[in-house]
Amino acid sequence: MPELRKDPIVDRWVIISEERAHRPGDFPSPTQKQQVGFCPFCPGNESKTPEGILALPENIGLNDRGWTLRVIPNKYPALTIEGDRDRIGEGMFDKMGGFGAHEVIIEHPDHQLSLEETSEGTIAETLWAFQQRILDLKKDSRFRYILIFKNHGEAAGATLEHTHSQLIALPIIPEMVIEEIQGARRHWEYKERCIFCDMIAQERGNGSRVVMENQDFIALCPYAPRFPFETWILPKYHLARFENDTPDHYAQAATLLKEVLLRIRVALKIPPYNLVFHTSPLNGDYDSIYHWHIEVMPKLTKMAGFEQGTGFYINPTPPEVSADILRSVRIQP
Amino acid sequence: MPELRKDPIVDRWVIISEERAHRPGDFPSPTQKQQVGFCPFCPGNESKTPEGILALPENIGLNDRGWTLRVIPNKYPALTIEGDRDRIGEGMFDKMGGFGAHEVIIEHPDHQLSLEETSEGTIAETLWAFQQRILDLKKDSRFRYILIFKNHGEAAGATLEHTHSQLIALPIIPEMVIEEIQGARRHWEYKERCIFCDMIAQERGNGSRVVMENQDFIALCPYAPRFPFETWILPKYHLARFENDTPDHYAQAATLLKEVLLRIRVALKIPPYNLVFHTSPLNGDYDSIYHWHIEVMPKLTKMAGFEQGTGFYINPTPPEVSADILRSVRIQP
Repeated sequence: MPELRKDPIVDRWVIISEERAHRPGDFPSPTQKQQVGFCPFCPGNESKTPEGILALPENIGLNDRGWTLRVIPNKYPALTIEGDRDRIGEGMFDKMGGFGAHEVIIEHPDHQLSLEETSEGTIAETLWAFQQRILDLKKDSRFRYILIFKNHGEAAGATLEHTHSQLIALPIIPEMVIEEIQGARRHWEYKERCIFCDMIAQERGNGSRVVMENQDFIALCPYAPRFPFETWILPKYHLARFENDTPDHYAQAATLLKEVLLRIRVALKIPPYNLVFHTSPLNGDYDSIYHWHIEVMPKLTKMAGFEQGTGFYINPTPPEVSADILRSVRIQP
Repeated sequence: MPELRKDPIVDRWVIISEERAHRPGDFPSPTQKQQVGFCPFCPGNESKTPEGILALPENIGLNDRGWTLRVIPNKYPALTIEGDRDRIGEGMFDKMGGFGAHEVIIEHPDHQLSLEETSEGTIAETLWAFQQRILDLKKDSRFRYILIFKNHGEAAGATLEHTHSQLIALPIIPEMVIEEIQGARRHWEYKERCIFCDMIAQERGNGSRVVMENQDFIALCPYAPRFPFETWILPKYHLARFENDTPDHYAQAATLLKEVLLRIRVALKIPPYNLVFHTSPLNGDYDSIYHWHIEVMPKLTKMAGFEQGTGFYINPTPPEVSADILRSVRIQP
């Protein structure tokens, strides 16, 4: 069974998930290609995946062919709902059972399309599906955080080519979120303002790092990005929780996300990328201090190991350069 | 000129270093191979690198052929000694000039050898060279931290094949070190004991995560590792500062480091890896709470982007399994 373990020095929780590959021969070699041929996410192969959780259009059976979007449990879950969540001490160490949920959102039936090649409607429906899954999972008060992300392309960690996102419901709050909350709370205590709202106001005034805007959303390259062409998409209004947002806002976010991903695709010649949705923890009052957003991280550099090991980043591309390139690139209509 | 910029939300400093590649076409494609043919680190090419800083054996000229170990400035430095270190506010953002130093330690003249294939004497001399460079650089009180690391293999971020380590002297303390110090201080305030010493005591009592020991050093797979086969090498005595250690201890650390790297090499079939030296910040009193050590991180999984973006790790290999495999693997005599 998977376990959550906490590093006693830096208080970082890690999932130890033996169900996935773990012996020396199980790791893919750097040159090993993704599995080709059979795709369990393609229409017609519904019986080859675990039982469906959600499907669109609304009146379709959860395991029927003909879906336009499909949510299923991950066949190789990092955490499972059967897992124990008792906290256990092992001397100075802390662990808990691998309680959680791990789902896959297949955003489109066409194996050939990347998310940015699907319609704005598909992307808006994907955001709606994320919302539905969060609203359903948060009924279980044992979950503390729901992490939604997308690995696109082998180098970004995707093991299946067919476009999909992942959702992991966690009994702990990931360190990244704790750090953001701590920083946002410091700012709130000092100024009684949301730090993300302040950042958006300053970026709009300056303009050099803004990629694009629509009525309610803004895409910008952050001031101190870890990665070249790292781009954040944020609502211009204040809202802590992604799942409390509206269909109209999801549609606007989808428009901007599609356009940003297309611009990155053209500017960087179809790079691998990761998307991470940042939203408030499920329990506790973070409504004043937190601000949901999407972080887009193209995977261009290979310094992963060192930077992963140190939390210290060297980024060769100033965000003003990234933003300028993304603003000026021409994408096909 | 490079700049250091601070993320206002999570207080993370990032180096923005335009001198290195930064435009879209400048990033290597995932399949692009390392440069082959001419190697600036090979004997005979001393004039093709910046002027040497240190060389062994001791009586050799800094730019002469015949060296067994050589330290040079990085030709493409992430930070430079000419950089400004004034802190400047840009509205709510903070930056400072890219003041620092970036050096390369070429551990051996033979282009074909990996560090673990060189002798224990070479590795001990390498540790001695690190010490000399830290002692020299710390005379400049503007430096706050000296980060020493090694990227081995393309997938781990190495751009040149010839074995080498890197040293970056920084005007700030990297986030990873701040987090370790905070955790170690909490433990000290509670127990008046070093958290690393406590961890070593518990691991020696348990044994399941210990890879090997010699008189004064221990190699172990930590309780909550981020990566499969992550292995730490620590002195069993308490010492905060790497640079305050002795030649005898460097020799013992070298023996263990060589053996651990050889075991990883055999068990995982010559994987890419990163080494990161963790030592106390240069200024301030961390002598009671901190404990220098080396972290070895084989690069086996590709989940870099997501995990880099979230600080949240899924590790498919329990450290007890890693340690067991590393203990039992046979390496050639």
